[in-house]
Amino acid sequence: MFTKILIANRGEIALRIMRTCREMGIKTVAVYSTADKDSLHVRFADEAVCIGPPQSIKSYLNIPNILSAAEITNADAIHPGYGFLSENAEFSKICEDYGIKFIGATAEQINKMGDKATAKDTMKKAGVPVIPGSEGLLSSVEEGKGLAKEIGYPVIIKATAGGGGRGMRIIKEESEFQKMWDDAKMESGAAFGNDGLYLEKFVEEPRHIEIQIVGDQEGRVCHLSERDCSIQRRHQKLVEETPSPIVTDDLRKRMGEAAIAGAQAIKYEGAGTVEFLVDKNGDFYFMEMNTRIQVEHPITEEVTSFDLIKEQIKVAAGIPISGNSYFPKKYSMECRINAEDPRNGFRPSPGTITSMHFPGGHGVRIDSHVYAGYTIPPHYDSMIAKVIVTAQSREEVIVRMKRALEEFYIEGIKTTIPFHLKLMDDETFRSGHFTTKFLESFDFSDL
Amino acid sequence: MFTKILIANRGEIALRIMRTCREMGIKTVAVYSTADKDSLHVRFADEAVCIGPPQSIKSYLNIPNILSAAEITNADAIHPGYGFLSENAEFSKICEDYGIKFIGATAEQINKMGDKATAKDTMKKAGVPVIPGSEGLLSSVEEGKGLAKEIGYPVIIKATAGGGGRGMRIIKEESEFQKMWDDAKMESGAAFGNDGLYLEKFVEEPRHIEIQIVGDQEGRVCHLSERDCSIQRRHQKLVEETPSPIVTDDLRKRMGEAAIAGAQAIKYEGAGTVEFLVDKNGDFYFMEMNTRIQVEHPITEEVTSFDLIKEQIKVAAGIPISGNSYFPKKYSMECRINAEDPRNGFRPSPGTITSMHFPGGHGVRIDSHVYAGYTIPPHYDSMIAKVIVTAQSREEVIVRMKRALEEFYIEGIKTTIPFHLKLMDDETFRSGHFTTKFLESFDFSDL
Repeated sequence: MFTKILIANRGEIALRIMRTCREMGIKTVAVYSTADKDSLHVRFADEAVCIGPPQSIKSYLNIPNILSAAEITNADAIHPGYGFLSENAEFSKICEDYGIKFIGATAEQINKMGDKATAKDTMKKAGVPVIPGSEGLLSSVEEGKGLAKEIGYPVIIKATAGGGGRGMRIIKEESEFQKMWDDAKMESGAAFGNDGLYLEKFVEEPRHIEIQIVGDQEGRVCHLSERDCSIQRRHQKLVEETPSPIVTDDLRKRMGEAAIAGAQAIKYEGAGTVEFLVDKNGDFYFMEMNTRIQVEHPITEEVTSFDLIKEQIKVAAGIPISGNSYFPKKYSMECRINAEDPRNGFRPSPGTITSMHFPGGHGVRIDSHVYAGYTIPPHYDSMIAKVIVTAQSREEVIVRMKRALEEFYIEGIKTTIPFHLKLMDDETFRSGHFTTKFLESFDFSDL
Repeated sequence: MFTKILIANRGEIALRIMRTCREMGIKTVAVYSTADKDSLHVRFADEAVCIGPPQSIKSYLNIPNILSAAEITNADAIHPGYGFLSENAEFSKICEDYGIKFIGATAEQINKMGDKATAKDTMKKAGVPVIPGSEGLLSSVEEGKGLAKEIGYPVIIKATAGGGGRGMRIIKEESEFQKMWDDAKMESGAAFGNDGLYLEKFVEEPRHIEIQIVGDQEGRVCHLSERDCSIQRRHQKLVEETPSPIVTDDLRKRMGEAAIAGAQAIKYEGAGTVEFLVDKNGDFYFMEMNTRIQVEHPITEEVTSFDLIKEQIKVAAGIPISGNSYFPKKYSMECRINAEDPRNGFRPSPGTITSMHFPGGHGVRIDSHVYAGYTIPPHYDSMIAKVIVTAQSREEVIVRMKRALEEFYIEGIKTTIPFHLKLMDDETFRSGHFTTKFLESFDFSDL
C-alpha cells in the first residue's frame, strides 16, 4: 500500500480524498495556490506545498511544479481528484515515467475515451449501444433518407462544423426531410463556410443516466449501479440521485452489463463512469466515459456502502476487487450548493462567508471545504458544498433534503440553496418524470 | 397523524425530534427556559413558548406550564425526549386526561418499569433472565450459604440500606462466607444503623448491552438489535456501539426474544430499551427497561435505516408496525462530546463557543444543537454533540471515528474529544474485550 499520496486538487474533493487516506493510515500532501492558503485541504493535510499563483495554469495545472512537490515530499502516488489534471493523458504518462503511481486511468485509456469518435467506435465494437447515425458526412439527401428509414424517425441532422444549434434540424418524418436538409445546408454554409452534414437518431425525452464502474489490474470490472443526473442547467449537473426513478431492474442490469463490457474493452483500471442517454422507450445510448472520480460519487457510496476513493486507492495499489456488482438498497440524492445567485442567472458570488451552520442529523452527509470566515476565491469553480441525503424511499429523500436545505444557514454570499428548495417542491421533479431539458423551462424568477 | 407536536425538551434531542417532524410534515412547538432563548431548538421550531427560568424544576419539569404551552398552541401531542419528564408517570397520565397524546409509555408501563423490584418481578414472570439472588433479606448466614451454593459462586452480599459500596462484599467461595458476612453486617450496621443484607449472583466481567424494541398499540413488538454501552465513567455512558463485539448471532437472537417477551408482558407501546448485563460466559441478566428514546438511539438508526423518532410518532398515532425484527448490517459507534474537561475529572466547562467546525464526509453523522457563538448554559447536562460514525466493520468505524474527531474543531470551551481520541487508539478498546469497569483503570492524565 502507498505510504504517502499527493492530492493534486483543491476544495471539497481534496478534503474528501484526505479523509479516506487518513482512515487508511496513508500520509497526505496538499498542493495549493496562493489563493488557497487558508483552505481546509491545506490545514488537514500532513504536508502542504505551495505550487503557484491563483491562475490554474500556473498552479493546479502546472505539471512540473506538482511533480516537484511529489518528489520533495517523497509521495509515492498522486490522486488527481476531478477536473484539473484528472483526465490529462500526458500527466498520467509522466507520473508513470517518474515512478509515481497515478491514481486514475492510464494515458492510453484516457486517450481512447477522451476522443469522442474513438470512444464511440471502441464502445460500438464492444457491443455497447451508441446513438445510430451516419459514418461521417452524408453524401446526398437520398443517403440521408435511406439511413433515417433504417434507424427510424425522429432523426437529427447536424453541421459537421456546427455549434450552438446552427445548421441543426430535427426531422420527424420523411416528408420533411428535403426541406430540413436544404435549410440546414444553407444555414451551415452561411454560418461556417462548410455545409457538410451528418445524421443521428434523435433521442426523445432524454435522461442523463450514468453507471459507476470499478475495474482492477487483473481485468475484473464491477458496476455499482446508476446515477440519474438529468437535472442540469446548461450541461452543468445540479442535482443527482440514485436509483433513477425511471430505471427498472431489467434496464439497470442491461446498462450495467454494457458499461462493464465497455470498460473491459479498454482493460479499464480504477473508478470510472459510463454516461448514457436514455430515451422515452428505455433505450440507452453511450455518450462518454469519464476516467476519474466524479463530483456525484457520494450518492453511490451511500446506497452501496462502498468508499469509492478507497476503492480507487486499493485498485491502484494492485489489490483485486471481488468483481461482484452492487444494486442500490436505499435512495440517495445530492444537491450541489454553489456560491452563485440563482435569481441572477447563476452569477458567481465569491466572497467571505461571515456566518455558517451545516445541516445534520439522520441521513445527512455534508462534503465541503468551507467554514465561517472562509473567503471563496473567484478563480475556481463555485461549488462550496454537497448536501447528500439518504433514506428508504425517493419521497423520504426529497422531504429530508428539503429539511436539510432549510437548516443550511450561510451568510455573506449568495448560494443556490433557494433554487434547490424550490426544486424539492416542484411537482414535476417530485413525480420523477423529467428530462435533461427540464430546467430550460424552470422559473427561477420567484426564488 | 398528528398536526402539531410540542417537544418538552431542549438541546440536541429537541432538534432531533423536530427534524423528523419536519420530514413528516408535522408542525412543531418548542418550549424553552430563559437560559435557552438562543438555542437552535427554539430557532428551528414553528412556534416557541418560554416556560420559565433556567432551573429545570421551574421550566422543563414544570408540568402546568408545559401543558399551558400545549393548549395555547393547539398541539395534539407531546414528545418528551429523554430525561426531564420522559419517564414521569404523572405527566403521561395528565397528558392523557387532557386529550393530548403523550409520545411515550403509559403511566402504568412507566410505573411498572420505574420501580426496580416490580420491574424485576415482571420480567422474571415473563421468562426474562434476572440476576438470581435472595427474595428480600437473608435471615441467617446459613440461608446465605445455601443460596450461594444453589446459584453458584461468586456472589455478592449487599446492605439493604447501602450505597457507595459500603456494606457490600464479593464472595468467591464458601470458605470466605462467614468472614464476609460478619464484615458486611458490621459495616452496614455502623454506617446505616441497619445491618440487613441481601444476596445476588456476582456478574463477572460485566458488559452493558441493551436491546432496542418497538411495540405498537396492537401488541406487536419487534427488536432492532443491541447496543453495547460498556464504555462508562461513573455509570455515565460515553461511547456506544452496535453490533457489540461480544454478541454472537445466537446470543443476539436470545436477548432479542427475551426483550420482546418482557415488553409484551407489559403490552409495551412505543420505543423502549431493555438493558442487560452480560457476563463472561455470555449469560445475560435483566437490569432495567427505559420507557423512552435514548441518547444512543442513532447508532441503531444507522445500522437498520429506521428513523426511531418516526417510529415513535407512528406508533403513538396508532399505526401498526410490521413486527419483524432487524439485525445490523453495518457497524456504528457514537461518541458523546461533552463540554467537560477530561483532564480535570470531567469537570463541566460551560461557556461560549468562539469558533467551531463539525466533521463531515462519508459515514459521519452529527447530532448537535450548538453553533459558533452559542453559549452553553451551566444549568443542564453538558452534552453538546454526538458524533455518530458508520462503516462496514468495527475496524473501519474506529479509524473513521478517529478521523472525524480529529476534524472536530471547537474553541472557547473544553470538551471530551481528547479522551475519545485516546480511547480510539487504546489497544484494549480496539480489541473489543473490555467490561463496564474498563474506564476505572483508564489513564486520563496524558490527554
